[in-house]
Formats: sequence, C-alpha cells, structure tokens
Amino acid sequence: MQGTTIGFVGLGPMGAPMARNLLGAGFDVALWNRTASKAQAVAGDHPRATVATTPAEAARPVVVAMLPDLPQVRDVVERADGLRAGWRAAGVDDPLLVVMSTVSPVAVREWARDLAADGVRLVDAPVSGGVEGAAAGTLSIMAGGADADVALLGPVFDALGRTVRHLGPVGAGSLTKTCNQVVVGGTLNALAEAVAIAEAGGLDLEAVLDVLGGGLAASQLLTDKARRYLTGDFTHGAACRTQLKDLEFGIAAGRELGVATGATEVARDRYQQMVDRGDAELDHSAVVRVVV
Amino acid sequence: MQGTTIGFVGLGPMGAPMARNLLGAGFDVALWNRTASKAQAVAGDHPRATVATTPAEAARPVVVAMLPDLPQVRDVVERADGLRAGWRAAGVDDPLLVVMSTVSPVAVREWARDLAADGVRLVDAPVSGGVEGAAAGTLSIMAGGADADVALLGPVFDALGRTVRHLGPVGAGSLTKTCNQVVVGGTLNALAEAVAIAEAGGLDLEAVLDVLGGGLAASQLLTDKARRYLTGDFTHGAACRTQLKDLEFGIAAGRELGVATGATEVARDRYQQMVDRGDAELDHSAVVRVVV
Repeated sequence: MQGTTIGFVGLGPMGAPMARNLLGAGFDVALWNRTASKAQAVAGDHPRATVATTPAEAARPVVVAMLPDLPQVRDVVERADGLRAGWRAAGVDDPLLVVMSTVSPVAVREWARDLAADGVRLVDAPVSGGVEGAAAGTLSIMAGGADADVALLGPVFDALGRTVRHLGPVGAGSLTKTCNQVVVGGTLNALAEAVAIAEAGGLDLEAVLDVLGGGLAASQLLTDKARRYLTGDFTHGAACRTQLKDLEFGIAAGRELGVATGATEVARDRYQQMVDRGDAELDHSAVVRVVV
Repeated sequence: MQGTTIGFVGLGPMGAPMARNLLGAGFDVALWNRTASKAQAVAGDHPRATVATTPAEAARPVVVAMLPDLPQVRDVVERADGLRAGWRAAGVDDPLLVVMSTVSPVAVREWARDLAADGVRLVDAPVSGGVEGAAAGTLSIMAGGADADVALLGPVFDALGRTVRHLGPVGAGSLTKTCNQVVVGGTLNALAEAVAIAEAGGLDLEAVLDVLGGGLAASQLLTDKARRYLTGDFTHGAACRTQLKDLEFGIAAGRELGVATGATEVARDRYQQMVDRGDAELDHSAVVRVVV
C-alpha cells in the first residue's frame, strides 16, 4: 500500500503525529484540518504531503479520521464539501473510512450500516497509548470491520502502532476500547477513594501507595499516577472531559446489552462534576478532588 | 526474641501456616483454636509447641490473633477463660496483643484506647498475600502501633512476611489494608462490567483481556483473574464474604473521614448480592455474575 495516497482528516494532538508517521512510512497523505494552519504545519515541505482546503479534496480511496467524536466524523463525510461529495467527484466507488477516534460502539455500528448502503466501507480502529504512543508509532490499535478491509489496512496500522488487534466486525474495536475505558475509569475512582481515605486518615500516602503497589491492588494506573497523587499536580495528561465521554459509551453499551454499569456510573458522575467545576482538562486521575 | 514464647490464637487457613512459620523460626508458641484439633494439628510433636485448652492458657506476653474479625478477637480477650484473665493469672503486666486479621480501623483504634487503660498494648498488623503468602512466609504486613511495640515485633514479623511496613499509630495498619481492599474491590467491579460487556457484545474475551492487559487497564487483578473470567471457574480463592466485610470497613472509614465512597458502595452491594444468593465462598472475581 506504500506509495498509495491516504486522506487524513483531524490533525489534533493525536492526529498530527499519526499523519507524520504515515508520511514517514512512505505514504502520500492528503491532509485536512478545520484549522488549516495545522495541516500546513504537518505538511511542511514534505514531498508526499498535500494540504486539502476542504474534506472533499482529501477524499482518497482510504481516509483516516482522527476527530474528537463521531458527530464530527459524520459532518466531515456528509457536509456539502465533504468526503462523500469528494469520493463521488473523484469516481471512487468503494471508499474505506477508518475511524480511529474513540466513538460509541453502538452509534458507529449503526452508521456503518447506513454507509454500506451507499458503498462506503467503515473500519473502527480506536487506539490507546496517548500522545506519546502516537508520536512514537507505538499505539495499540483495536480494529473492528470486515476481514478484507482490516487486512488491507495492515501497512497503515503498522505505521501507526505496535500492537494491532482485529476484534470482530464493525463496532468491535470501539466496544473493546469502551471496555478498556470502563476499567480505567473504575480503577481510577477506586484509587481516588483509597487515596482520599489514606490522606484524610493521616497516613503517609507514599508508604500506602508503595504497599498497595506491591500486592493485589497493583496496576498500571497506580504506577503511572502515584506521582500525581503525591504532588497534587494534575496538569496535562488524559483529560477528564475525554474520560467522561468514553464512560458514557460504556453506560450506553451496558444498557443495550443488559449489563449493569453501576461502577461506571459512579465514575461518570464524578467526571461530570469535574467538567462542571471547570476541571475538564485536568488528568483523569484528578477525580480524587471530588471524593472529599 | 527467638526463644521467647508467643501465644497464637486462631489457626484457620491463614493462622495455621503463620504459627508453623513462627515455630520454624525458633519461637516457642502456645497455640489456641476454638476447634482444638486444629491446634493439635499445628503442634504435631514439635518440641516448642504447646496446645492451650483455653485462650487464658495461651496468655503469653506477646499474643498474635488471626481470627475472622474484631468481635472474635474481643471475645478471646474478654471471656471468662480469656487472655485478660490469663495475663492477670500469669502476672503479665503489659501484654502486647497483635491483631493480624483485617478489622475495622475505626473499631480497632477505639478498642486499643480501652485496652491501654488496662495496660494492654495493641498493634494492628493486617496482611496481604493470601494463604500462599502465609505458607511461604512472604506476607506483606501493614503495622500500626507505638514505635517501640512495632520494633519489638520485628523478629515475629520477619518470620511471617517479606515486606513489613510501619504506617503509623494503632489503626494505621488496618486503614492501609482498608485502602488496599477498596482498590481491589473497585477494580474487580470495573473489570466485571468490562468483561460482561465484552461477552454480551460477542467479542473474543481472551483477545479483549489481552488488549486491556497491554495498556492502561493492566493490573495485578487482571493478570491473576483472567483465567477465571475465561473459564468461569470461581472456586477457591479470596472469598466474596471476606471482600464484603473489608468493603464495609472502607465505607465506615469514609463516613468517619468525610470521603465519598460511591465506587466502594457499588462493590459492597454486589458482594452482598453474592452472599445473599449463596455464592459467599466463591472468589471475589465472581462478582461478574451479578452484573448481567
């Protein structure tokens, strides 16, 4: 697939380094971003980069979307100067849209059904690994879609991530990411309660976290966030705003599938509180602030 | 302290191997258990073991208690043929009681205050590591008490555990263990929701758990329990009954300290359901059964 052209829409903190990695891996990339300067910044004077002034101009046979959520992806497809118009104008019969944002597994599956009726194939392929993983090309990619489509995207995914998993039909990638976020949100909220109890009880928090990290309470989150709990510095990181959105997907999936999501709802309510009090951009571990 | 005699009350699945390790480390141990045959089984024909027929007969200057919960410890101290009567009869002026069960941090602190008025010192030193850790002498020990008392117990703790932490005054050990159990219970409940969503959504659970284990959702619990989720075998392990008790301590501590414990309450309610439906003895990861 190297040498072929890919459209890439959405050049935010995740999308920009991902697009750069595709250019670095030998793909021609047509770049579109709502704020055009970001597309120009990624393109620089790279010989294989093209800056598209409308989404329609980025309507290549394969288009990767890394936008905040599904409504933004739908808009980029459906707007008058959008991808669908572009594919039609360019005579692309069976375009493949790769949604790499974290989106609702229920909604993306329904939308994929509508798109398929018009000949547009969709693969959902949310990622984990954050901005660091995007820059290093070491993302974990959770893909859902038809076997042939996911296979076709192999070289694209290899340029972006280290671990690529095909988990089932369209929606399976997003449902897996949702499961991941349910565990992350729930674990952070249990940690928040434990940290707040330890502090309010006058314990040496560093010693407590050390003990917890040596046993059954150990987790990647405890390791990654211990410094934040000890210093109270919750700037940068994975935003509470994003965690809230992802937990809503978990609750919606639970409702559809008949699974109780009480733990996820407690976490969701707290991230809503964080957003309401103006802490939407703090790291998701900052939820410890709303348990005291 | 080797060569000195220790009283040991409570020779259940944890207490029996712990008492054996004390004998192995060179201590003389006076063993008492409600069911006397268990004390005899630990003693065997060990030259340094004595079987006590009442708690009073095990009333050495240092007594380790490994009973289910604080009410049982209080009973063993206060009953007519209990430790207090035994200490008085033996002329032990300032006995040291080491409570190694997981007990309420609030209740143990209050009781220690009452005991101190009568010259009885208390160290709370709950453990983690389970039956395997008890047998191998590799428990993590979380101690709360006066510096001198915890220092005196150094050789005892070294015979029982690998990691010994003195976390503060009486109650600090139990509060730390409570924090540990809040994280364990909350994480297991988040995992339960994710596992149930993945299964109900038709995903390949093994692939999903593998993806989760490679990122921010990774935890010791995910590693330890993955096989149980995949096979549905929840026999043996750490009982739901015990997890329920420990989460009640977390909720009580939160109430006393002004910390919200919504995540812990969701977990507590589910373990109560497990007990109510007759699954009290299943491993605590079996809580996945009450989210669908």
